[in-house]
Amino acid sequence: MQFASDNWAGAAPQIIDAMAEEAQRYAGAYGTSERDASMAELFGSVFEREVAVFFVATGTAANSIALAAVDRPGGVVLCHAHSHIEADECGAVSFQTGGSRLRQLSGKLGKISASDIGSEIGTFSPDFVHGGQAMAVSITQATEVGTTYSLDEIAAVSEVARSAGLPLHMDGARFANALVALNVSPAEMTWKAGVDLLSFGGTKNGCVAAEAIVVFNPELAEQLPYLRMRAGHLFSKMRFVSAQFEAYLKDSLWLDLATHANAMADLLRDVIRSSGKADLAWPTATNEVFVSMPEGLAERLRESGAAFHNWPPTEDFEPTGDRILVRLVTSFATTPDDIAAFADLIRG
Amino acid sequence: MQFASDNWAGAAPQIIDAMAEEAQRYAGAYGTSERDASMAELFGSVFEREVAVFFVATGTAANSIALAAVDRPGGVVLCHAHSHIEADECGAVSFQTGGSRLRQLSGKLGKISASDIGSEIGTFSPDFVHGGQAMAVSITQATEVGTTYSLDEIAAVSEVARSAGLPLHMDGARFANALVALNVSPAEMTWKAGVDLLSFGGTKNGCVAAEAIVVFNPELAEQLPYLRMRAGHLFSKMRFVSAQFEAYLKDSLWLDLATHANAMADLLRDVIRSSGKADLAWPTATNEVFVSMPEGLAERLRESGAAFHNWPPTEDFEPTGDRILVRLVTSFATTPDDIAAFADLIRG
Amino acid sequence: MQFASDNWAGAAPQIIDAMAEEAQRYAGAYGTSERDASMAELFGSVFEREVAVFFVATGTAANSIALAAVDRPGGVVLCHAHSHIEADECGAVSFQTGGSRLRQLSGKLGKISASDIGSEIGTFSPDFVHGGQAMAVSITQATEVGTTYSLDEIAAVSEVARSAGLPLHMDGARFANALVALNVSPAEMTWKAGVDLLSFGGTKNGCVAAEAIVVFNPELAEQLPYLRMRAGHLFSKMRFVSAQFEAYLKDSLWLDLATHANAMADLLRDVIRSSGKADLAWPTATNEVFVSMPEGLAERLRESGAAFHNWPPTEDFEPTGDRILVRLVTSFATTPDDIAAFADLIRG
Amino acid sequence: MQFASDNWAGAAPQIIDAMAEEAQRYAGAYGTSERDASMAELFGSVFEREVAVFFVATGTAANSIALAAVDRPGGVVLCHAHSHIEADECGAVSFQTGGSRLRQLSGKLGKISASDIGSEIGTFSPDFVHGGQAMAVSITQATEVGTTYSLDEIAAVSEVARSAGLPLHMDGARFANALVALNVSPAEMTWKAGVDLLSFGGTKNGCVAAEAIVVFNPELAEQLPYLRMRAGHLFSKMRFVSAQFEAYLKDSLWLDLATHANAMADLLRDVIRSSGKADLAWPTATNEVFVSMPEGLAERLRESGAAFHNWPPTEDFEPTGDRILVRLVTSFATTPDDIAAFADLIRG
Repeated sequence: MQFASDNWAGAAPQIIDAMAEEAQRYAGAYGTSERDASMAELFGSVFEREVAVFFVATGTAANSIALAAVDRPGGVVLCHAHSHIEADECGAVSFQTGGSRLRQLSGKLGKISASDIGSEIGTFSPDFVHGGQAMAVSITQATEVGTTYSLDEIAAVSEVARSAGLPLHMDGARFANALVALNVSPAEMTWKAGVDLLSFGGTKNGCVAAEAIVVFNPELAEQLPYLRMRAGHLFSKMRFVSAQFEAYLKDSLWLDLATHANAMADLLRDVIRSSGKADLAWPTATNEVFVSMPEGLAERLRESGAAFHNWPPTEDFEPTGDRILVRLVTSFATTPDDIAAFADLIRG
Repeated sequence: MQFASDNWAGAAPQIIDAMAEEAQRYAGAYGTSERDASMAELFGSVFEREVAVFFVATGTAANSIALAAVDRPGGVVLCHAHSHIEADECGAVSFQTGGSRLRQLSGKLGKISASDIGSEIGTFSPDFVHGGQAMAVSITQATEVGTTYSLDEIAAVSEVARSAGLPLHMDGARFANALVALNVSPAEMTWKAGVDLLSFGGTKNGCVAAEAIVVFNPELAEQLPYLRMRAGHLFSKMRFVSAQFEAYLKDSLWLDLATHANAMADLLRDVIRSSGKADLAWPTATNEVFVSMPEGLAERLRESGAAFHNWPPTEDFEPTGDRILVRLVTSFATTPDDIAAFADLIRG
Repeated sequence: MQFASDNWAGAAPQIIDAMAEEAQRYAGAYGTSERDASMAELFGSVFEREVAVFFVATGTAANSIALAAVDRPGGVVLCHAHSHIEADECGAVSFQTGGSRLRQLSGKLGKISASDIGSEIGTFSPDFVHGGQAMAVSITQATEVGTTYSLDEIAAVSEVARSAGLPLHMDGARFANALVALNVSPAEMTWKAGVDLLSFGGTKNGCVAAEAIVVFNPELAEQLPYLRMRAGHLFSKMRFVSAQFEAYLKDSLWLDLATHANAMADLLRDVIRSSGKADLAWPTATNEVFVSMPEGLAERLRESGAAFHNWPPTEDFEPTGDRILVRLVTSFATTPDDIAAFADLIRG
Repeated sequence: MQFASDNWAGAAPQIIDAMAEEAQRYAGAYGTSERDASMAELFGSVFEREVAVFFVATGTAANSIALAAVDRPGGVVLCHAHSHIEADECGAVSFQTGGSRLRQLSGKLGKISASDIGSEIGTFSPDFVHGGQAMAVSITQATEVGTTYSLDEIAAVSEVARSAGLPLHMDGARFANALVALNVSPAEMTWKAGVDLLSFGGTKNGCVAAEAIVVFNPELAEQLPYLRMRAGHLFSKMRFVSAQFEAYLKDSLWLDLATHANAMADLLRDVIRSSGKADLAWPTATNEVFVSMPEGLAERLRESGAAFHNWPPTEDFEPTGDRILVRLVTSFATTPDDIAAFADLIRG
């Protein structure tokens, strides 16, 4: 019963098969192969418009290099206080930009509101150069706490950003999980709602290592080949990433994998709700489930083989008494049997 | 007949098999799995001493992050004018260090001499802060032109570096090819000869994407976890890199692959020497073969399906008349049939 | 009645005289003159121990380059949320370090507590490289809101920093004002209390442009000549800064100027206290006075020629009703007549 | 007889007088005073067009921050191998840009030719991202070896730069000396000849510390307020720099000072030419004189009180036999008596 992280899952067989097939042939290095060349079209068909695509090694690289593409000196990115770029990337954005900063906004359920963003933007002024300048807004979809921005919420954020001349970046490490949870199209959840730059993650959803920066505003793509290369993220055998993405995006594998992960999380949510021993800390519809349970129960579950992480208290939930907050994550690899076994365990 | 680059080859089946096996299980992310944890010991056994090992996405990342670990403000890395870090990495060292520079030394056969390094170090002085300060020496083994530093040459370079308090970095993108060409041990070619930091490349020699920074001086390893993380090079599913390296290093696969590539290059060198139509531009013993041939011949070979790159004139060889300089690279994937077919072609 | 900022004052005549005298002779450039060479000794006598001293152009440069001297990759400086380095320097620390970050702690009266610093340090762990690493603690003396850390408070902060292996930096833009307010020695307020690096400001207290990084821990000074040079802060005619500091520090001019400024602020505080129309927002003993007054009064004072800035609400004081918060700053140039005129005005 | 450097001279009395006057009044900090506000107009009148002007602490800051304004990732600035930005600024350009590089071109008499620049630009290609991208051309006027680019030469360089979409930067540390030597207008020597960005130096020509970035292309000025602020180069009492520049530029003081320095150098050149004991190494018309003389003579001159620096051999002059190469620099402070005394000395 492995619920520690979707990063702990292996890789989908279709992904490995595609890599194995790729291994048997010669092809151009550094993104010059035919398969590499077909990627822009493949992503274009997924997003229903022309896009520029840049593969990098990790989600951290995708986020920080995407934001480096919109860097301004003394620049400040507005983001949620719990966002991955703030809390979990060792200052990567500040590093890739040579010193830009993140301004952390708080917000319920992992989301920052358009009005809070607007207020914060208003604190900057060209007359007060000491304060620096806003350079971008970054949101995470699905959020770090398993929730999703609705299309309207994204549009409201992008409207505020756009009216201030700021690009909107979306960290989509769990893009697919959010997409199937919302039941919308990739286009609707991104550029149609005003997203300029997307970190599109495949790794958590069944790939080995497949992360892409997708650029909807062609101007912002101009410097990305150099930003990626100088950062050491241009794979010599990039076609092995292309092969992963081809398998991932063709025949809707990615949507199937995410649908499955979310469905397993639905089962898990049902188990929690009906357990009488633990509670959902807040509602989620993706593959992350946040649960309040007695510390003793968590201990017992772990002793019996269930793996999951404790989670720090948030503005959305502060456990009291003997309760603690934990996170359970499902993935493409989670099985109904895993959930059933967990259900048996929790029932005791 | 694919001689464009060893980067154009696919991947060895043992490497893919290891990844496929890894795909089927859960394990800790970000280098926390048991397999990841065993890597230091595995590399330690290969190098016959305790080492610290950091996997990254590319050779450019390995070089630039390794050198960032020895950065000094106003720092200058001494290297060959044709070195990969100078000519082919988009300023990655300057980027990762936030502004350090490379000082290009010339030298025959892709190598810089201990005495030239010593003279150059002598141009820096703490009394002339305007000039900056030397921070490291970097050599490439095998070199960019297919040659190798002998153990004595490495020791001489490291002696000069050490006496000036400078660490010695080795770019080992083709480490294995050099090693088997010299018929020495990994320990002899590195720390026993005074190398402090090594970029250890597996990708060109049959891996999908397997590059490591190997640190022989433990002090230099202290900051590398942070240098790697902030640069976006900590893979979430790092164990897929570990799996590659395990397959690569166990049972001497890496040496077998390099021995094969070099042997294919030996055959190719024989073909050139006996062709009567082309000549070796300079002697090499690794998997790169530099050839002077009439432009018309190159054209004819390409039309018949041989793939290889032109090479710019160097201080070692300046083609005259109708001659041009070309580079032929063999790999683990090259077959005796490829060489035989090329031999037939060149004979006309 | 100029109370906008001590930065709005001109320069003390002794400072200008020293520069005028310096203008008449030849001397070595880039800090090689005899006067430049005497600076370490001069500062050493002021601080009663050997120190290293580096002049730079601005307080922002002093702060950011001092902190660059203790940079670590993924590094985080702990500081007050209202500190100058966080709020007023356009991300200079992040820039000079190539990407380190500031962690803002809140705290009453502009001060961060040893226990809060300790708790925050505890959130970092080498096992969670994603979070980065603490690299320094920075405090401001006098603080941004005119208060001072007592010697015991500084010692408590330094104790927490030291036990975590972190250097302690002090932003001393108004060092002299704090010193005379506390009536202690420079040594007591710095290295004897555990300060490792000091930004020592002369500009606000009567100089034209005289800012120094003073280093008490010799190891931390090693790279500063290069850090300063690469940042463009090594003045060619540095001796004009040395001349300022010589005039400033000799015969206690600096203490006299600060004593005067503080005394003028004392008079101002008396005026406010006895005005019946405005109140001190919180107690200060340096040259900054924070006042709560009706907006209409502020308007009237300004119309009559008093210059001062509005100040945003803080955790220490949130004005209510028709009240606003304003800041009045005295300087070496403030006269008793200025205060008397202001007293007349406020009385109406 | 002080010929070590124009940096060794003090400051012109008019400059000091302006600062002394400024010291006696209050005025807005950080460039907000009326005097500061008048600077754009003052420089505009000097350059006969609208310009943006940014004061910084040093020439190194001016050069590196100006080039940071035109930074591109993986960027390469083309410059002379002996240029100040390459040889004497501790990697400041690479630092301010977070990793851009300089490509050193050789060229006679301190100048790079339009055709060499064109060839070098041709080595970059968007198809070879590994090589980075050209980002600017930088020339020095007067050059590091005392010569000047003619208007035609500047125009030819700018034509090549412009046709490749690259901005042209001019390092004008000795701008005034070049200007009066060529007898042209500031407009002719800059934007009319295609210069986009100018480092305009006043310090070497009689100021205390007065360096400006002058921007002729308004787009390039947009980010400079932030680039300067984050680098710690926004003086709080900027008006003391403005006061210097006002005195410097008004009533042609700057031209008078440079005319005098050049005239003193003319006298010195005459002395050398007619000495029979030393020779001009190459012709110059500015305030730097490069001389070939017997080592013994140099020794004797120094013993008798003449101060000057040895100069390394260049592509323009390689001393032979007992000869060495030395540099003599005149300044606003040099007197005819100094020259006469030197003439007496050299005659023996």
